[in-house]
Amino acid sequence: MISSLRKYVPVLDWGRRYDRDALQNDLIAAVIVTIMLIPQSLAYALLAGLPPEAGLYASILPIILYAIFGTSRALAVGPVAVVSLMTAAAVGQVAEQGTAGYAVAALTLALLSGGILLAMGVFRLGFLANFLSHPVIAGFITASGVIIAASQLKHILGVDASGHNLFELVVSLIEHLPETNFVTLIIGVAATAFLFWVRKGLKPMLISKGVKPRLADIAQKAGPVGAVVVTTLAVWIFGLSNWAGVSIVGEVPQSLPPFTMPDLSLDLVSALFIPALLISIIGFVESISVAQTLAAKKRQRIDPDQELIGLGAANVAAGFSGGYPVTGGFARSVVNFDAGAETPAAGAYTAVGLAIAALALTPLVFFLPKATLAATIIVAVLSLVDFSILKKTWTYSKADFVAVAATILLTLGFGVETGVSAGVILSIGLHLYKTSKPHVAEVGLVPGTQHFRNINRHEVLTDPNLVTLRIDESLYFANARFLEDLIQDRVTEDCPVKHVVLMCSAVNEVDMSALESLEAINERLRSMDVQLHLSEVKGPVTDRLRRSHFLDELTGRVFLSQYDAWAALSGKGPRSDLAAAQ
Amino acid sequence: MISSLRKYVPVLDWGRRYDRDALQNDLIAAVIVTIMLIPQSLAYALLAGLPPEAGLYASILPIILYAIFGTSRALAVGPVAVVSLMTAAAVGQVAEQGTAGYAVAALTLALLSGGILLAMGVFRLGFLANFLSHPVIAGFITASGVIIAASQLKHILGVDASGHNLFELVVSLIEHLPETNFVTLIIGVAATAFLFWVRKGLKPMLISKGVKPRLADIAQKAGPVGAVVVTTLAVWIFGLSNWAGVSIVGEVPQSLPPFTMPDLSLDLVSALFIPALLISIIGFVESISVAQTLAAKKRQRIDPDQELIGLGAANVAAGFSGGYPVTGGFARSVVNFDAGAETPAAGAYTAVGLAIAALALTPLVFFLPKATLAATIIVAVLSLVDFSILKKTWTYSKADFVAVAATILLTLGFGVETGVSAGVILSIGLHLYKTSKPHVAEVGLVPGTQHFRNINRHEVLTDPNLVTLRIDESLYFANARFLEDLIQDRVTEDCPVKHVVLMCSAVNEVDMSALESLEAINERLRSMDVQLHLSEVKGPVTDRLRRSHFLDELTGRVFLSQYDAWAALSGKGPRSDLAAAQ
Repeated sequence: MISSLRKYVPVLDWGRRYDRDALQNDLIAAVIVTIMLIPQSLAYALLAGLPPEAGLYASILPIILYAIFGTSRALAVGPVAVVSLMTAAAVGQVAEQGTAGYAVAALTLALLSGGILLAMGVFRLGFLANFLSHPVIAGFITASGVIIAASQLKHILGVDASGHNLFELVVSLIEHLPETNFVTLIIGVAATAFLFWVRKGLKPMLISKGVKPRLADIAQKAGPVGAVVVTTLAVWIFGLSNWAGVSIVGEVPQSLPPFTMPDLSLDLVSALFIPALLISIIGFVESISVAQTLAAKKRQRIDPDQELIGLGAANVAAGFSGGYPVTGGFARSVVNFDAGAETPAAGAYTAVGLAIAALALTPLVFFLPKATLAATIIVAVLSLVDFSILKKTWTYSKADFVAVAATILLTLGFGVETGVSAGVILSIGLHLYKTSKPHVAEVGLVPGTQHFRNINRHEVLTDPNLVTLRIDESLYFANARFLEDLIQDRVTEDCPVKHVVLMCSAVNEVDMSALESLEAINERLRSMDVQLHLSEVKGPVTDRLRRSHFLDELTGRVFLSQYDAWAALSGKGPRSDLAAAQ
Repeated sequence: MISSLRKYVPVLDWGRRYDRDALQNDLIAAVIVTIMLIPQSLAYALLAGLPPEAGLYASILPIILYAIFGTSRALAVGPVAVVSLMTAAAVGQVAEQGTAGYAVAALTLALLSGGILLAMGVFRLGFLANFLSHPVIAGFITASGVIIAASQLKHILGVDASGHNLFELVVSLIEHLPETNFVTLIIGVAATAFLFWVRKGLKPMLISKGVKPRLADIAQKAGPVGAVVVTTLAVWIFGLSNWAGVSIVGEVPQSLPPFTMPDLSLDLVSALFIPALLISIIGFVESISVAQTLAAKKRQRIDPDQELIGLGAANVAAGFSGGYPVTGGFARSVVNFDAGAETPAAGAYTAVGLAIAALALTPLVFFLPKATLAATIIVAVLSLVDFSILKKTWTYSKADFVAVAATILLTLGFGVETGVSAGVILSIGLHLYKTSKPHVAEVGLVPGTQHFRNINRHEVLTDPNLVTLRIDESLYFANARFLEDLIQDRVTEDCPVKHVVLMCSAVNEVDMSALESLEAINERLRSMDVQLHLSEVKGPVTDRLRRSHFLDELTGRVFLSQYDAWAALSGKGPRSDLAAAQ
């Protein structure tokens, strides 16, 4: 009872062993992560089309809930770029940005997403995430990064622009180009350049000047805060928001996360269900791969189903506390891990830090220019953009290349939901297509051995009465008929054939369709006076075949090894080969 | 040039060698098939909701087109029960039975179906039919047979009844039960009983009375004609259609197939496209399995892609000559084959026979009661109903059982299109689910051999430093993460492990997702100080892995055989085992 409770509430496990050392390490990590998260949370809320405080609220309660229910020691849960973009796309379809309905729909999306994740966790449906293939995810994230960066350019230029896909966005930006606010543009470009330099050049420079690497690291993480402070001061001192029309964050309420009630009307729920499902699965995939990478470094275990419950609880919390969908983020988790976080308590301390910020520090960001936040986002997401996946898949596998190229193009052209759905369907379709035409090799005996190899690739012994086909795929409905055609063709064209042997060493399954195809093959070969034999059938496959009548009706035999089949059926006789092999 | 023309127009091939013997055999077969087809064609038109002549027209030009383009020597193309039912379901959604629009929509359906089949043939898309698994087809045909039989009961009872699914149909029949026409009922029940007896009892009785088997066979085939003649005469002589209200076929135009123009308006085409696709695929599957079974008996070849072209041409012809969708039927093809048909010319002679019937004999069926046609259909389709597939799949494979049970229930409950679509989606889903959790065995060395077996099933040697996992499935996106979890769990729980070997003898593919998972596993094991090795990787898989950087980054080695891996990595050393093995 207690141990099963501990399985579902991991805090009961690590909480008992919590000591002073762990406390100290967790606190240091929490301070660093808090400093990094304040501007990032505001920026991602902007990206999601929500008021800035939504980003802070989405980082507070969700972190605590994940700390209680999640299994990763270092994962930091909160708003992330891709999920923020997907939130904007989904909520934008049901409400106008800036309205109360928009914020409420974001809460509903978070609650739905939380519900879906919890359900997947309870019913052990985590495997559904597997159907997002890696190339599809890579293509999707790259294309999302491009869209996110493009969507932030309007803040850098200080213009209004919008669009549902990259093309519309770019056209709209070009149309509004003449309205560019040059003061905003200077701030935006300077902030972007500064942040790129902080990311690449600051740490080496500090180290070369004798600063300790750890300190240089912290300075690099605090870079965005520097940009925030400098540009906020500039706007305030020079009154840029008045005479120059620079867009600023403005008034942010000073408050702990409020209790909010998502709208669960049937219309809204049915409009947001599919987006919530996609957000859940993509968020889970992103989160679990970060969690597993970090856990491996300390030889810790991640339970994927329990992770679903942790993320689900975090999203439900986001829905009831003024947030929007959240997941475990790559950047923030790595910072947390590198800063020495030992337990999920570090996340809870981060939450406390962010709560203090929400309560006390929001007046300080009144004059923060939106261009600075946009610069933060652009620099963050451009590190996600990686078109090399196209080249990698092109070299490695054309099917994967097609899936990744289609995902990128469709995401850019038709938006995130179309892109990722098409990618999933295409991956499945291509996989089924590949397995529907499996590799089948006609094999012969390598002289002097008991090995059998492809007759087209090796010098092997064959027998005109005997055709041996090695099937390099499980037999199931998609390729059952392929095998029927293949064998019928092979035997029809070659009259002396008396025996067909199917070598099944790579056949991991024979489903009902394949069984019936084998029965049909057996019958058809019988009417051509040809015997059908099997060799090297795996244990589980044999067990299953025994449950049918196939083995009784088989005209030939089942041989344990292909060599046994050769020895028994080959006109050339086994003895000479055996002698040669010894 | 000539030979490629011959490939696409098989008549050029067999036509050159046509001789007197073949002519004689084909003519005899044609006469027998024509006699059998006249009542059957009228009956299936009734089932499709069309006027009786549509059934005759659908058997004339299509047969000739298939004779020119098809590859099977014995296949007889025309209306069949399941396709007639699907036609009624599809056309019933866009037009009212008995209207001119209904007949035109049936032409459109035939043309669309022909176009789809031709396109599948030209683009070599025949493999799409593979995604209809055998259990789904079996379930679908059984459920269709039940629906067809139920739909004909109204003709036996002489009442009006209708419904889109079995439930509605049965309710409607019960509601109309009080209106039963008892004279019609007597004719219907008598005809049904007679036809069952003809099917089961006539031939043995004739043979026992000294009639030659071949003649008894022909008598059995002509049985339905007997029922038609007797009941028609009864209605005519006793005037049953007047005073007793027995429904009769009535006036059928005396005409060769007319030239008709399908309606290709966008609305109709888009409403009928999916039904046409399902009809094409199901028709193709039924046809190809009949064709292959019959071809095997004479060691002939069937070219599936050319079959698509033959069936496509037949359906286009049906669309332009007053017919409706057609395919190669089981019953008529077997009769044709048994009657000795040697070439597709037999089909052409059948077409001539049916053309004569359409031109000259239609006045004879004026008084033919619809109840007799309904009896013909019921007796024909009940032979398709076979619930034993439920038992077979239950024993053999639960996944197939789920697919077949769902197909039957959904077809009965929601109609043919929903049933077959759900069956296809479910088969694919279950297949993906199964392969997403592949069988992975931890293996050890069988003492005294070089064989490795599951440690849970056999007494084998193991080494605490060495974990060998045999993966019984191709590695692709659906199971890539499963492997990551599995290995991370296995290594985390067991500290002394220094080497992990993946035995890949049954891995037929490693896609990009699986490659990236292997890279992640390699990196994670590296951070746990564990080396990753591969063994028994297949040639094509190795070729592909070489195109990536994985093999360079692999912490361990790639062994040709698992025994090599054991010899090199096992602390117990190879020498002693080797000695034991010899």
